[in-house]
Amino acid sequence: MGARAIIAGDGALPGLLAAAGPALIVRLEGMPGGTDGADIVARLERLGALFSDLQGAGVTEVCFAGAMRRVAVEAEALDAVTRDLLPRLTKAMGQGDDALLRDIVAIFEGQGFTIRGAHELRPDLVAPEGAIAGIPRPEGDAARARGVLAALGPLDVGQAAVAAGGQMLGIETLQGTDAMLRFVGRTAPGSGGVLVKRAKPGQDLRVDMPVIGPDTVLLAADAGLSGIEVQAGHVLLVDPDAVCASCAARGLALWAVP
Amino acid sequence: MGARAIIAGDGALPGLLAAAGPALIVRLEGMPGGTDGADIVARLERLGALFSDLQGAGVTEVCFAGAMRRVAVEAEALDAVTRDLLPRLTKAMGQGDDALLRDIVAIFEGQGFTIRGAHELRPDLVAPEGAIAGIPRPEGDAARARGVLAALGPLDVGQAAVAAGGQMLGIETLQGTDAMLRFVGRTAPGSGGVLVKRAKPGQDLRVDMPVIGPDTVLLAADAGLSGIEVQAGHVLLVDPDAVCASCAARGLALWAVP
Repeated sequence: MGARAIIAGDGALPGLLAAAGPALIVRLEGMPGGTDGADIVARLERLGALFSDLQGAGVTEVCFAGAMRRVAVEAEALDAVTRDLLPRLTKAMGQGDDALLRDIVAIFEGQGFTIRGAHELRPDLVAPEGAIAGIPRPEGDAARARGVLAALGPLDVGQAAVAAGGQMLGIETLQGTDAMLRFVGRTAPGSGGVLVKRAKPGQDLRVDMPVIGPDTVLLAADAGLSGIEVQAGHVLLVDPDAVCASCAARGLALWAVP
Repeated sequence: MGARAIIAGDGALPGLLAAAGPALIVRLEGMPGGTDGADIVARLERLGALFSDLQGAGVTEVCFAGAMRRVAVEAEALDAVTRDLLPRLTKAMGQGDDALLRDIVAIFEGQGFTIRGAHELRPDLVAPEGAIAGIPRPEGDAARARGVLAALGPLDVGQAAVAAGGQMLGIETLQGTDAMLRFVGRTAPGSGGVLVKRAKPGQDLRVDMPVIGPDTVLLAADAGLSGIEVQAGHVLLVDPDAVCASCAARGLALWAVP
């Protein structure tokens, strides 16, 4: 078996995956999380150089982990491999995040790398079905938010939504779950509602698994929510002990359903 | 023909409708817009008294106009008519705004009143198809937002949404269009995106027609948007001259499609 590389974005997840076994840490310039402590510092414009570095180091397994964001590409810095890939990447970019990530996975697979999901390296972080912290809230609001996410998923929109008293208070857009929770707290404080977070049907869990961390719990509590429902087997808890401690400290329930 | 009553909420619309012909102005205690200048001040808890007052004044036509909100009902203040209606109103309330308004319409119709829509009294306020101010923006972002609204409409969610560069930046929830626009401005400034506002498929235009006013235009401009698309024939401009003046002042385009 060859070596493993973790292409690391922001947050605690890259560190938790590195604990699963030896791995080279790759960080991309311009991405959140910075490049400190990286074994390889790469640039989006020089994917050819990254592939060579990885292959030279005997890497056969690649794992994407942590939050990334779209960054502008400098045309004059492109290497030949990236220049050739640019038309297909640009096209995928226009079709949404799911399409872009599917294409990036296909490009890495085309170079001979096996993509390993965070949930494969750390199955202990995956939300198990049932009550995780506190007592699950009555079904109404969670079902309402789930219905909205089910309607939006085919459009590659909406990993998360908030409902309270049968009404929708927040639907996640590009700005992410945290921004939505701050909006709910500012505009509908003290609602006692429920946050639901699930994978979109087209989401490739190997490279883009929804995540709940202790910060999510604190933001949900600050927004006046009473509970969080996640999709069992499809959402990572980063990390489970800290998430449960935050739930206990703030009186939030956390549970997972299929 | 009998007299007309306008059940008035907040904003400029009640005044614009009153200009369409003689009408009694009814205001409900506790609703936004206050009770100043009302011919009849009513309470939600005393619908029986309101029906008597209207019938005594020879009212046969009722028009709902302006923003209302859900208010808590004081149980001890209920008259017999409202007490009898409460179970069905409570049930409808749990099914969303569209269901609640449909039920209120049915109750007024059951009392012999004809419901007249704002668009019937002031057809000159209804958005006509085509360019209204400036030059319509290219189709992409408007189509993206329209797709999201089409998916959500059957769930009685989403009169408005914002897309930019193929990505969703805002989806309206209970807090309304203005709150969504402030969120977009705060979290994704300068996007150049497009606001789309349309009626939901189940929305009864006689009592709940989507509205764009000059304030909407200013908020959209502050949020860094470049245009607004509304549904022709299904959105009111309150009022058209002021809306167009705001568009011109802030360089926003406004157009309507079927």
